[in-house]
Amino acid sequence: MILQDTIVALATPSGAGAIAIIRLSGADAIHFADNQFRSVSGKLLAKQKTHTIHLGHIMDGNKTIDEVLVSVFKNPNSYTGEDVVEISCHGSKYIQQEIIQLFLRNGCRMATAGEFTLRAFLNGKLDLSQAEAVADLITSDNEASHQIAMQQMRGGFSSEIAKLREELLNFASLIELELDFAEEDVEFADRTKFKDLVERISFVLKRLIDSFAIGNVIKNGIPVAIVGEPNVGKSTLLNALLNEERAIVSEIAGTTRDTVEDEISIGGMGFRFIDTAGIRETQDVVESIGIKKTFEKIEQAQVVIYLFDSTQFKTLGSQFKIELEKIKNKYPQKPLIIIANKIDKLNEIDISNLKSQISNLELLSAKEGIGVDELKNKLLSFVNTGSLRNNDTIITNSRHYDSLLKALDEIEKVKHGLESGLSGDLLAIDIRQALYHFGEITGEITNDDLLGNIFANFCIGK
Amino acid sequence: MILQDTIVALATPSGAGAIAIIRLSGADAIHFADNQFRSVSGKLLAKQKTHTIHLGHIMDGNKTIDEVLVSVFKNPNSYTGEDVVEISCHGSKYIQQEIIQLFLRNGCRMATAGEFTLRAFLNGKLDLSQAEAVADLITSDNEASHQIAMQQMRGGFSSEIAKLREELLNFASLIELELDFAEEDVEFADRTKFKDLVERISFVLKRLIDSFAIGNVIKNGIPVAIVGEPNVGKSTLLNALLNEERAIVSEIAGTTRDTVEDEISIGGMGFRFIDTAGIRETQDVVESIGIKKTFEKIEQAQVVIYLFDSTQFKTLGSQFKIELEKIKNKYPQKPLIIIANKIDKLNEIDISNLKSQISNLELLSAKEGIGVDELKNKLLSFVNTGSLRNNDTIITNSRHYDSLLKALDEIEKVKHGLESGLSGDLLAIDIRQALYHFGEITGEITNDDLLGNIFANFCIGK
Repeated sequence: MILQDTIVALATPSGAGAIAIIRLSGADAIHFADNQFRSVSGKLLAKQKTHTIHLGHIMDGNKTIDEVLVSVFKNPNSYTGEDVVEISCHGSKYIQQEIIQLFLRNGCRMATAGEFTLRAFLNGKLDLSQAEAVADLITSDNEASHQIAMQQMRGGFSSEIAKLREELLNFASLIELELDFAEEDVEFADRTKFKDLVERISFVLKRLIDSFAIGNVIKNGIPVAIVGEPNVGKSTLLNALLNEERAIVSEIAGTTRDTVEDEISIGGMGFRFIDTAGIRETQDVVESIGIKKTFEKIEQAQVVIYLFDSTQFKTLGSQFKIELEKIKNKYPQKPLIIIANKIDKLNEIDISNLKSQISNLELLSAKEGIGVDELKNKLLSFVNTGSLRNNDTIITNSRHYDSLLKALDEIEKVKHGLESGLSGDLLAIDIRQALYHFGEITGEITNDDLLGNIFANFCIGK
Repeated sequence: MILQDTIVALATPSGAGAIAIIRLSGADAIHFADNQFRSVSGKLLAKQKTHTIHLGHIMDGNKTIDEVLVSVFKNPNSYTGEDVVEISCHGSKYIQQEIIQLFLRNGCRMATAGEFTLRAFLNGKLDLSQAEAVADLITSDNEASHQIAMQQMRGGFSSEIAKLREELLNFASLIELELDFAEEDVEFADRTKFKDLVERISFVLKRLIDSFAIGNVIKNGIPVAIVGEPNVGKSTLLNALLNEERAIVSEIAGTTRDTVEDEISIGGMGFRFIDTAGIRETQDVVESIGIKKTFEKIEQAQVVIYLFDSTQFKTLGSQFKIELEKIKNKYPQKPLIIIANKIDKLNEIDISNLKSQISNLELLSAKEGIGVDELKNKLLSFVNTGSLRNNDTIITNSRHYDSLLKALDEIEKVKHGLESGLSGDLLAIDIRQALYHFGEITGEITNDDLLGNIFANFCIGK
C-alpha cells in the first residue's frame, strides 16, 4: 500500500552536530527531492538506482541552502516500503529547519511521531510487535534491554506467537467446519491432538507471562533504595559502581552524573539507584517526614542497600543495629545489602569486631575501590537472568502482557471446554477470542486508536 | 595522501533519536567495516561500488548489535578523500556506544575534533578557509551567517584570495628573476602594471578588512541592551519579536525560551538581546550596583532599547525623561530606540500627549502585536546589510582578519617601495611576506599548531 502524501522529518537527534539526516517518505518523495536538489552529476534522482548516494545542493530557487548527500531508496526496498529519500546535510539547526520548511512549503507534510514506522507496519515491512520493538531499541540503554528489543525487532517473539496462532487457527477452522455438518455428528478436529495443542499453547503463554516480571525489570531498571545518612559515601559509592563503565564511555558520550538518583548499568543490567534521607529518628518534624519518605522509597525498591560509615561504628553502632532491625521487621522479604563503607580507615581488629556484630556484612571502600566488584555480583545475584542467558523470549511490553493474559484466559476456557465435552460451536467462540488476542499482539487485529497510542510514543522521524 | 590509521566517530548529535550515523575514514575503513558487518546480500563491502548503500547487521562475534544501513564511499570520492564508511544505526545511545567501542577494539582510533575535515584539508578536498567555513556553517543559526559560511565553504573567499596571490606570485617571480640578472640591470616585471596590481590588491584587502565589522556582527549577533524596569513587558516584547519565527519552527525544533537574554533572528540577522536591571536611582546599595551593571551592558551593546510602560507615563513621565537624558548624554553616538509599551491601554489623547513629550517614540503593544513589525524594521535599519545584499565577500573569521591586516601592511610597504624606487631585492622580501599572509588564509602556509587550533574548535565526528 502506497499512502498518498509524502512526509518529512528530521531523523537524527535535534541539536547541532557534524551531520543531520532529513527523511522523506511517500509516493512523491523522489519527485519532491528532485524539485529541490541540484545534483553535481546533473542527473535526476528519479533516474538513479535504488540504494545509491548522490552529491549535490539543496536549492531554494537560486539560493543554495546546503551541500548535501542524498540517498535514494525505491519502493518496496526501503524502511517504510515506500519511496524514501534521506538527505544528509550539515548539522546546523538553521540548515535543518530551512530544508524541512522548504519541503513543507513544496508539498510535503510534517511526519507525526512514529509515522515512518507506522507506514512500515501498514506496508507489511514489520508486524506490530516488531514496530514496537523499534521504539524499545531506541530507548534501550543497557545490554539486557537492548538484547530483548533486538530479538523482538527481528521477529523472535512474533514468530513464536504467529506459529501458535496458525496452529490454533487450523483447529478453529476444522471445528467450524464440523458445525456445517452438525447433523452428521462428525469430528474433523482430532480432540486428542487439539488437547495437546491447547496444553502447549497454555504452557508457552504462561512462560511468556512469567517472563514479564523480569522483562519489566530489565526494561525499566531494577530499583535499589540506598538508605544512609549524609556523608556516609552514597555519591562515592555510585561513582565507584559507575566508574568502569564510565572509563569506557567517557570519550564517546561525555557521561556526567549530577544526582545520586541515577541508573547504572552493571553486568549489562540497568539498576536504578534511589537516594533516601535515611531513617535516623529525631525530634525534628521535617526529618520525620523524611523518614516517612524513605520508607515509601524502600517500598518501591526491589533491593535495599543500608550504607553506613564504618569509622562511626564505635560511637553509633547500636543506632545502626536499631535501624537495620527496623528495616528487616518492616520488609522481611526484601533483599537487604548491609555495607560498611570507608573500611580503608579501619584496622584489622575493628574490622573483625564489625563482622562479629553484624552478619552478612559487605566491606567496602568506595574511595579505594575495595569491595566494589563483590557488591556488583551481589546486586546481580538478585536478578533472575536465567531466561536472559538461555535466550528465551522475554516480554517487556505491558500491552503484550495484557493480551497474553487475555489469551491465556480464553485458552483455559477452551481447555475446560474440551475436558467437559463442550459443543463445537461454543468451543469455537472461545478459540476465536484467543485468536483475537494473539492477533492484537502482532497487529493482525488492530484499530486506529491502538495504532495511535502505540506510535504516539515514538519520536518524530522514526 | 592516505593517512595510515582509520578513525571512527559519531557524526550525528549525541542523544537518542530515530537514527544515528557512525563514520569511519582511513585506508582500512572498508576492511574494518567488513569485519563487523554481515550484509543481507552476503557480499563484502569491498566488492561494492562507491556511493552505494547496503542493509545488514553489525555483529560482535555472533551477537547482533544492530540492523543497519552502511554507505560506502571509495577514495578519492569521499568527504575526507579517503575510503569512508557511514553506518546508519538505530539512534539509541547504547547502540551508538557499542558500535563505536566495537571498532575501537578492532583497530580503529577515536577521531579527534574536526579530524575528518582536517583529513579533507590534508588530502586537498578543501582549502583551509573552506574547512573553517564548515565549522561556521554548523554553528550558523540565522540566514546571514549561514549565507556567509556557505559562500566561504564553496570557495568564494578563497578563490578571490587565491587569484590575487597568483598574480602577485607571478610578479614576485619576475622580480626575483631580475635579481639573477642584477648586473645587466633589466626589468622583467613591468613596474606600471605592478603598481596597478598592488593598488588593486590594496583595494580588495581594505574592502575585505572593512567587511569584518559587519561579518563579526553577523556571526555573533547584534547586541541590543534593553533598559527597562521589571514588569514593563521585556519578556512579552521578546516573545512578540520571536513569535513569527517560532510559529514556523515550533513543530520542528520545539524552540523554548526561558530567559530574557536570548538571540532572535530578525530578517535573517541575529540580534542578541541583553536584559538589564534598568537605571532607576534609589538609595539601595544593591540597586546602585545594578545601575552600574546596566551601564556596562549598554557599553557593550550596539543598539539600546529604552522600554517603558506607557500607562505609568502620567505618574512617572518626568522620571522616564531623566533616565533617557542620562543615556543620551552618556552614549551620544549609540543608536537608541525609545518604546512606549502597553499602548493598547491608552486613549487617543494620552497617546498624542505621549508623542508630543518624547520625540522619536515607538508605540508598541507587545501583547497585541501592535508596532512589532515597525520595531523589527527599525532594528534592521541599524545593520549595514548593503554588502550582504550585494553578495560581496564578507570576512567573519578573526584569523583571516588578522592575516589580511598583515598582508595589507606588507602590500603598503611594497607600494611605498615602488613609489620610492626601492631595489628589487628589497621589494621581493616584502612581496614574499605578503604572499605568506595570503597563504596563511588558504592554508598553503600552515603548521601543526595552527591546524591544531583551528580543528580543535570543531565537533568530534566532523
